[in-house]
Amino acid sequence: MTSPAVPYARENYARFLDELKALLRIPSISTLPEHDGDCRKTAESLAGELKRIGFDNAKLIETRVHPLVYAEWLHAPGKPTALLYGHYDVQPVDPIDEWISPPFEPTERNGNLYARGTADDKGQVYAQIKALESLLVTTGKLPINIRVLLEGDEEVGGEGIAEYVASKPPELKADFALISDTEMFAPDLPTLCVGLRGMIYTEIEVHGAKTDLHSGMYGGAAPNPFMALAQMLAKLKDEEGHILIPGFYDDIIPPSAEELKAWHSLPFDEEQYRIAEVGSPKLVGEAGYSVIERTWARPTLDVHGMPGGFTGAGAKTVIPAKALAKVSMRLVPGMTPAKAFAQYKKYVEQIAPAGVDVEVRLIHSGEPSLIPVNNKFVQAATRALHAVWGKDTVFIRSGGSVPIVGDFERHLGAPSVMMGFSLPDDSIHAPNEKFCLKNYALGIESLIGFLEEAGK
Amino acid sequence: MTSPAVPYARENYARFLDELKALLRIPSISTLPEHDGDCRKTAESLAGELKRIGFDNAKLIETRVHPLVYAEWLHAPGKPTALLYGHYDVQPVDPIDEWISPPFEPTERNGNLYARGTADDKGQVYAQIKALESLLVTTGKLPINIRVLLEGDEEVGGEGIAEYVASKPPELKADFALISDTEMFAPDLPTLCVGLRGMIYTEIEVHGAKTDLHSGMYGGAAPNPFMALAQMLAKLKDEEGHILIPGFYDDIIPPSAEELKAWHSLPFDEEQYRIAEVGSPKLVGEAGYSVIERTWARPTLDVHGMPGGFTGAGAKTVIPAKALAKVSMRLVPGMTPAKAFAQYKKYVEQIAPAGVDVEVRLIHSGEPSLIPVNNKFVQAATRALHAVWGKDTVFIRSGGSVPIVGDFERHLGAPSVMMGFSLPDDSIHAPNEKFCLKNYALGIESLIGFLEEAGK
Repeated sequence: MTSPAVPYARENYARFLDELKALLRIPSISTLPEHDGDCRKTAESLAGELKRIGFDNAKLIETRVHPLVYAEWLHAPGKPTALLYGHYDVQPVDPIDEWISPPFEPTERNGNLYARGTADDKGQVYAQIKALESLLVTTGKLPINIRVLLEGDEEVGGEGIAEYVASKPPELKADFALISDTEMFAPDLPTLCVGLRGMIYTEIEVHGAKTDLHSGMYGGAAPNPFMALAQMLAKLKDEEGHILIPGFYDDIIPPSAEELKAWHSLPFDEEQYRIAEVGSPKLVGEAGYSVIERTWARPTLDVHGMPGGFTGAGAKTVIPAKALAKVSMRLVPGMTPAKAFAQYKKYVEQIAPAGVDVEVRLIHSGEPSLIPVNNKFVQAATRALHAVWGKDTVFIRSGGSVPIVGDFERHLGAPSVMMGFSLPDDSIHAPNEKFCLKNYALGIESLIGFLEEAGK
Repeated sequence: MTSPAVPYARENYARFLDELKALLRIPSISTLPEHDGDCRKTAESLAGELKRIGFDNAKLIETRVHPLVYAEWLHAPGKPTALLYGHYDVQPVDPIDEWISPPFEPTERNGNLYARGTADDKGQVYAQIKALESLLVTTGKLPINIRVLLEGDEEVGGEGIAEYVASKPPELKADFALISDTEMFAPDLPTLCVGLRGMIYTEIEVHGAKTDLHSGMYGGAAPNPFMALAQMLAKLKDEEGHILIPGFYDDIIPPSAEELKAWHSLPFDEEQYRIAEVGSPKLVGEAGYSVIERTWARPTLDVHGMPGGFTGAGAKTVIPAKALAKVSMRLVPGMTPAKAFAQYKKYVEQIAPAGVDVEVRLIHSGEPSLIPVNNKFVQAATRALHAVWGKDTVFIRSGGSVPIVGDFERHLGAPSVMMGFSLPDDSIHAPNEKFCLKNYALGIESLIGFLEEAGK
């Protein structure tokens, strides 16, 4: 028996898409203070929409940075309560000149919608809201109680939501969370994410001379902060991808034999992945682990940028007084951000070469997560997904970090269902981010089905 | 017998200083295309001034980038001809927020004149011109024939002047060159520079994935160009300052025992140099060599900046598709830029880690130089310096590079007298560049005396 909400969603698809495009046009880049106003505008727009479709108590909850959006519909006594989560902030758009169409002018091409935030995460947030609208308009109610909580700091570490959730507010009381911020393993393959890597994002700042110096006059005597950073970074990870921080791997809980077997049977072609998704001459990483293991179940260390010195065109013969490296590590179940950062900081200070002062800072962190698949809401989700996609759900992990999953578990006792509809080639955090239009449409239908299954 | 030009220079000093300040207000930053107009304006101002004081044939000579300034006074038959060289372009001013007074608003403090280009090199160029004016106004002539050649690309590699000099134009026929772009070893210590390091300025560009990737999704599989650069840089120079490029040290001609002995007797306090000039916790460099040897007579390798990736405030979890390192090496007598670059390029390509493509580019280069001290013009300079400063001249080298010195020797057969008046703490290429006002005044008097000695 198909829900009346599904035909409604199909009939209104063109409007649902136009509304999403309007949301995408607001450049809610949370890392850049000049876009604070855009973040607030996006939050206000979402709160307004939740009120419009029939939610109560729709409001912004202020945090230290960007506001949370909250709304509730609690008229299903005796039924479970779900906390629906997504984020309305987006990543910066640089390098801007690599975008084919402007990042904040949503453009349809080849069955996809291109814009910053389509897949990560406005398209997925809006699929939630349109599923709720479809149910409310066609049935006058929702199958379960729903609280919606959307954040605007996900791309900057989510401190605001973390503090709010840690305060255990009554408004967040829920039996489970539905997180719409993950991907399907492959096109048309219904997927639930049951594991996430955690992370620590850090900066290493190196100071050498008291001021920038001429490399002719002082080269050979003055310390070079970039060279010092290079020497330290080379000691953090070897050329085989092995992280050299003492004790870093000690607490890792490896995936079960059953999980490894399931991963092995996933449709994955490493050479295809290398060519189509990564595009590098070769893949890198720890010997003895598959790409899936390396990206889901092994920690990593990456450098994101090295500000300082002369970065313009041409030549400036300066020995910079200081330089910085932005370094993050992904953590896997068993590891904790606190211990990993302590190990890292101690080691970096220990390997700092003579001649420079080194400061190691933690910018933000998030716990890794692992969800039991026998959870009844996970089971409800697999039934709903089967009805829409006609296939069994695959359980995957993600190499990314959704720290809020750990917070919901720890502070609210709410396990998460991570049902997402982005695809591996959606270029999230990169130029030409996209969201598959089919996945937007079927994502809405899947969410309708899941809410109904959860209410049975 | 004091020249009448000297009292004239003293009487007109206030005006000479005001004129220099006007020149310093033009931001002739040669590395930044948006300042091309300022470079031309500076060149025109200098050509106009040379014409005004009585030079013939004052003109701009176009090059691929910024024009040269040429003027001549050739009315001393039977006397030698000098080619006076300096440069009117200046370094960029970043980091701008470290300047105490604005870089293009010349400001007097503590007996110094602060502005970008004061010491390097507008103050020294203008000292030449004011010496010429003082002689012409008071004696109606010059003691020798003079050609003035000023360039506007010195800070970007000087390709234009190099090509012009290599064409051996009749207008550059000269018996020697007088270069005003070096420093005095210590305050009040007359100094001639007789050796310069050469250089190669390069870029290493590393490409990993075809586009920027999310470090959560791809960390552990996608190559990280910054990590690859760090690994390569750490293999270029070890923590003891030893350059690891095979064969790099093979052709070095070490300083003579006599030269080393003279250097040893120079007034130099390593700890004072570390604290007052460098300001780092420790000095670095090759074991077994003094600071003077390391900066004058040993090659070095420095990193100037590493553009690419995310350099803003906060966190962006990107694995950048590409990253770049700006790396230069200083070369000493015996080495050649061509061979050093070939050795470097070959080695860098060889140590490139798996997973990335590496491109090594030469941005510009300059030959090292060594001038024989028994040259008669060097001897004339020491007599003139003794008359003004009351002390014997010390012969030093410079760690910096003035590639034109080698070009003048090779193409014009003109040995160089490098008589300069900047001081070690003048912060050239750095914030708060200054020029000592006393050195501006006595520099003019020294140049007057030198031209008269050269004509005897």
